[in-house]
Amino acid sequence: MLASAFMVGPAREATKGATRDSLRRHNLATVLRRVHRGGPQSRSALTAATGLNRSTIGALVAELVECGLVEEGEPEATGSAGRPSPLVRASTDHVVAAAVDIGTKWLTVAIGGIGGTLVTRVHRETNNDGRPYEETIAELCDLLDEVVGDLLPTQHLFAVGIAAPGVVRAHDGFVHFAPNLGWREVNLGADLAAHLGDDIVVFVANEAHLGARAEHLRGAGAGVEDLIYLSSEIGVGGGTIIAGRLQLGADGYSGEIGHIPVNTGPDATSCRCGSVGCLEAETGALALLALTGHQHTDHLSDAVRGIIATAAAGDEDVQRSLHEIGVRLGRGLAGMVNLLNPRRIVLGGYFADAFEFLAAGIDAELAQHTLSPSRSGVTIVPAALQEDSALLGALEIALEPLLLDPARSPAAAA
Amino acid sequence: MLASAFMVGPAREATKGATRDSLRRHNLATVLRRVHRGGPQSRSALTAATGLNRSTIGALVAELVECGLVEEGEPEATGSAGRPSPLVRASTDHVVAAAVDIGTKWLTVAIGGIGGTLVTRVHRETNNDGRPYEETIAELCDLLDEVVGDLLPTQHLFAVGIAAPGVVRAHDGFVHFAPNLGWREVNLGADLAAHLGDDIVVFVANEAHLGARAEHLRGAGAGVEDLIYLSSEIGVGGGTIIAGRLQLGADGYSGEIGHIPVNTGPDATSCRCGSVGCLEAETGALALLALTGHQHTDHLSDAVRGIIATAAAGDEDVQRSLHEIGVRLGRGLAGMVNLLNPRRIVLGGYFADAFEFLAAGIDAELAQHTLSPSRSGVTIVPAALQEDSALLGALEIALEPLLLDPARSPAAAA
Repeated sequence: MLASAFMVGPAREATKGATRDSLRRHNLATVLRRVHRGGPQSRSALTAATGLNRSTIGALVAELVECGLVEEGEPEATGSAGRPSPLVRASTDHVVAAAVDIGTKWLTVAIGGIGGTLVTRVHRETNNDGRPYEETIAELCDLLDEVVGDLLPTQHLFAVGIAAPGVVRAHDGFVHFAPNLGWREVNLGADLAAHLGDDIVVFVANEAHLGARAEHLRGAGAGVEDLIYLSSEIGVGGGTIIAGRLQLGADGYSGEIGHIPVNTGPDATSCRCGSVGCLEAETGALALLALTGHQHTDHLSDAVRGIIATAAAGDEDVQRSLHEIGVRLGRGLAGMVNLLNPRRIVLGGYFADAFEFLAAGIDAELAQHTLSPSRSGVTIVPAALQEDSALLGALEIALEPLLLDPARSPAAAA
Repeated sequence: MLASAFMVGPAREATKGATRDSLRRHNLATVLRRVHRGGPQSRSALTAATGLNRSTIGALVAELVECGLVEEGEPEATGSAGRPSPLVRASTDHVVAAAVDIGTKWLTVAIGGIGGTLVTRVHRETNNDGRPYEETIAELCDLLDEVVGDLLPTQHLFAVGIAAPGVVRAHDGFVHFAPNLGWREVNLGADLAAHLGDDIVVFVANEAHLGARAEHLRGAGAGVEDLIYLSSEIGVGGGTIIAGRLQLGADGYSGEIGHIPVNTGPDATSCRCGSVGCLEAETGALALLALTGHQHTDHLSDAVRGIIATAAAGDEDVQRSLHEIGVRLGRGLAGMVNLLNPRRIVLGGYFADAFEFLAAGIDAELAQHTLSPSRSGVTIVPAALQEDSALLGALEIALEPLLLDPARSPAAAA
């Protein structure tokens, strides 16, 4: 069953109806989200955090246990007097979701659930660049079948979240293009939904949007409500979290940070999008290769890591090249800081690995090109999750319907 | 009483409590907002639109009448059978708000209320550029006192919304700087709140943010949930509406579109912010003067209108200069389209007046520098409200507490 990624938030949902049932479901979701985001916690802690009374929390936790989404474990050790309060923790024994990362050189399928951690994964090295779409999808479907076949008999697969390195239409997972895979106008969402059947919800989203979401929830942007995430491997992509929410734009195409013009001078580099001077062309892996005098290679990521290692070993020429990348990146970030007034900018991909060599160039450009109130309120940090960020974000979108309405759990229906 | 502009939305408010009273207040706000945004409408229309039953709507409308926010007028003429339904319309007989626009060359104070229209205004030509802050504020306070003195004995002033041409901190109306007024670090919000006293709520916001809000609610962006507003007079400022909400950024400083770098070449123009190649320096009034060979003048707006009139009269040199402005503007807009995937871009200030001469240049740059899915989903239009946009936006923020909770009406307390 194909579903639209990034549904409306819980608040809007909860105000639609005015019945006792909708209030109970709203409270159920509130408790589940606290455990999902905050980790194991006692009933007392949930009572204190939600403002609901002790017996209501008891009933809600019991219902979440029935839904197969949490379990109650040993009470936490407590120094204080009184009866210890049982610890409520996320469970993946009954309800799970799959997270899929489609890379240029790999396919990864992982299983996770409430709590937001990945419990198993299958990673296959496979060259998807330029390979026919149908072949990649066939292999992905095999991999999904394999992972689903390995689930315990008690585990229900509820949903699949897919990270795609391309321009994804939010409402149906149609991929306009994915340049690093050679895809143009493919029905990724619908094709996978057809394979998985009506009982499994399918979500597709841009990998950098999912990276932004994951870093916001569990990475270098945790606790920050206004952030920009920017990641560079072959391409440069990103996502913006504003007032705590991932912003998709009108159709889901926002965050194409890689194609913001940052060089309008005569030395601007051509971009594979057809334009010149794009942030991606000026700061991506190919720009770094060109600046350091390397030839193009099929193994771009390895080449880039090699270059960064050389800088770390003390090569000042390479350090200067990375500084220049930082300057160019800073010019792009300056525009975003002026436009969006973010609290934090999280840099992923090779920008994170090379962070120490980029930082001074970025700072200098921000000092030059941003207004001081916005500049003084923003910090720039390397990403914390790296390779797993797209997978963790894909898990989050797959879990979203459950987090909004835990009663949708397939274990509850069973 | 100083208040923070742009409070939390009604949905979040309504889910906090679970009492019957909060539900009634939520419904009251829903009905009031429908009349505020949709204009006069019958009880039957409100019943149909809200899904509430007829007697509930009757009770809610009666309470809004008691709060002094709406009135019931003659039934609308109807061709259908049955008893005609009374028409519910906004009233400014009892509760009003003031909207203030602080310009370089003027001070305007207008009075309006629910319904979003300005019913009276006082406009004073006065040179605020470079004048001491205290003098401008003293004159503004006199003007406010005058307008308040002219209210009917039945009218209560509930709140004042102020549009300031500067970088405004959202939570307290502190103005970091307002370059066209020569202000630096002034307590605009607190100073006006001290003058107006505890019974009147004071909001301060950036004029372009308010323009964005007004165009979104009642202008060229009506009905569009993702839009960028961009306005050029002396400076270039803007605001972004994403998923229906004005985005302030982490501290309220977002929308500084004028300082996005758009020219990194050797011919980049110096900007008064200290940087070079900013959108404002490349496309603002001074850039147009320079391109058309005019001298700087104290009457920039008049000079710009004169230049546009020359283009309209057929001067091809001036038309070419405006085309060049369009190209530069298009480069800045391209980055925003890639980053935010808006549905509409609304151009205000002189960009609206010169729209026909800018459009081709903008389109050409968008074609060159944006990805096609985002480009095909966006349209670029001139603003509809122009001079009144900041005032109308200021009225909206002043009314926001009432629109969230009509029971706060001073008429209800009286």
